[in-house]
Amino acid sequence: MQPNKPTLHTCFSPSLLHLYDLTDAVVVIIDVFRATSTIAAALYNGAKHIIPVDSVAKAIEISKRIDGVAAGERDGKLAEGLQHGNSPLEYHKDFIENKTLVLTTTNGTKLLQMALDNNAKTIITGSFPNLTAVCNFLITQNKNVVLGCAGWKDRFNLEDTLFAGAVINKVKEQFIIHCDSSLTAELLYEQHKNSLVDFAPNLTHYHRLVERFGLIEDIKFCLTPDGANVLPLYEDGKLVSFSL
Amino acid sequence: MQPNKPTLHTCFSPSLLHLYDLTDAVVVIIDVFRATSTIAAALYNGAKHIIPVDSVAKAIEISKRIDGVAAGERDGKLAEGLQHGNSPLEYHKDFIENKTLVLTTTNGTKLLQMALDNNAKTIITGSFPNLTAVCNFLITQNKNVVLGCAGWKDRFNLEDTLFAGAVINKVKEQFIIHCDSSLTAELLYEQHKNSLVDFAPNLTHYHRLVERFGLIEDIKFCLTPDGANVLPLYEDGKLVSFSL
Repeated sequence: MQPNKPTLHTCFSPSLLHLYDLTDAVVVIIDVFRATSTIAAALYNGAKHIIPVDSVAKAIEISKRIDGVAAGERDGKLAEGLQHGNSPLEYHKDFIENKTLVLTTTNGTKLLQMALDNNAKTIITGSFPNLTAVCNFLITQNKNVVLGCAGWKDRFNLEDTLFAGAVINKVKEQFIIHCDSSLTAELLYEQHKNSLVDFAPNLTHYHRLVERFGLIEDIKFCLTPDGANVLPLYEDGKLVSFSL
Repeated sequence: MQPNKPTLHTCFSPSLLHLYDLTDAVVVIIDVFRATSTIAAALYNGAKHIIPVDSVAKAIEISKRIDGVAAGERDGKLAEGLQHGNSPLEYHKDFIENKTLVLTTTNGTKLLQMALDNNAKTIITGSFPNLTAVCNFLITQNKNVVLGCAGWKDRFNLEDTLFAGAVINKVKEQFIIHCDSSLTAELLYEQHKNSLVDFAPNLTHYHRLVERFGLIEDIKFCLTPDGANVLPLYEDGKLVSFSL
């Protein structure tokens, strides 16, 4: 153990975020199904930036003011009053290039707001589509890391945990990791890394998205590494694509 | 799926307990290292009953009044002002038979109090030493189950999760389980069930107990099934040994 390495912790639920010191850490907001996958896709396809907000009303109000695209979901489906949802496949280049997305979601955007409230200064978003960009950023920063899983309405979920495990698997040599959550995440990822899409039907959220809303293509995109390999960094109220 | 089966959920931290409906459920308090292992050992060795309390002062006051044994730990070691700690090996028959143990611990007894505050009516304690008794009780009750992991100061821990996985592995046919925490617990247990003691050095808490306090024999006892196979049931402020 090299004592000068930074630490890495995994937080399994927004309800546990207060247990971690975010002040000088890089906080990775993880909401694999689907907010952080959608954020990666939109920025990859040329969105100017993304403004995460905590209510539908705010999404509509801000998007009108700045001529942006109001989007979001509640309980896994298009939020009432919005024309655009939380599917990464909706934000292709022809539609989103040079536009601003104003996004509100059940879990991911809420956790981002909580991280700000807990004094986080460096916030990025992570998901399988931008796995490598996240790992490269964490390695170059040489700061403590908190992998923040958005979960589902404060409950633990497996897809966010699997992504945390994928990150740990790639960056662990650079960090001191002494955290049962991180060990669990990596063990689960090791168990399923070669069959993530086949494993997906075991996940609670899969049933919500696929059986109710038929979103199997979303699931495949959200579980495939590096399909939208950008680094969304939170700056002055916006997520922007950051270049190393 | 048979809709008339009861449900089973796993709660990974006291900070997540509010997400689960405990009212008509059997709540299993799990604190493998070491409160619920100690509780099983003391009752197995003939303790009359165990009074869980939330402070050292209360443990001393009550034990004096009823001529009981005040015991407990803080941060993994004997709490200041007490002569007896939280090691299951301390409570052998010659010492504890027919006595009342008044016990205070960092995590397990706190979670029990929280379950009461959240309207739980049926509370038992579980650990590897009484795995079979817990499973038999859950199967006969035909009620919803919440497996409550005490964790470490509200953080997720792996040993409590592994015990939850062991229970799920044995009772899953009798319940509807649609919960990512439960799936995770079972996957981890499946991965390590044949080598729990060998796996233990990976656990955060192992380092606390073994490297700081040399408690390897405690660890072995706490990870071995059915060494003290009783069913501690909470009734009128006391844990008593319940016979099916």
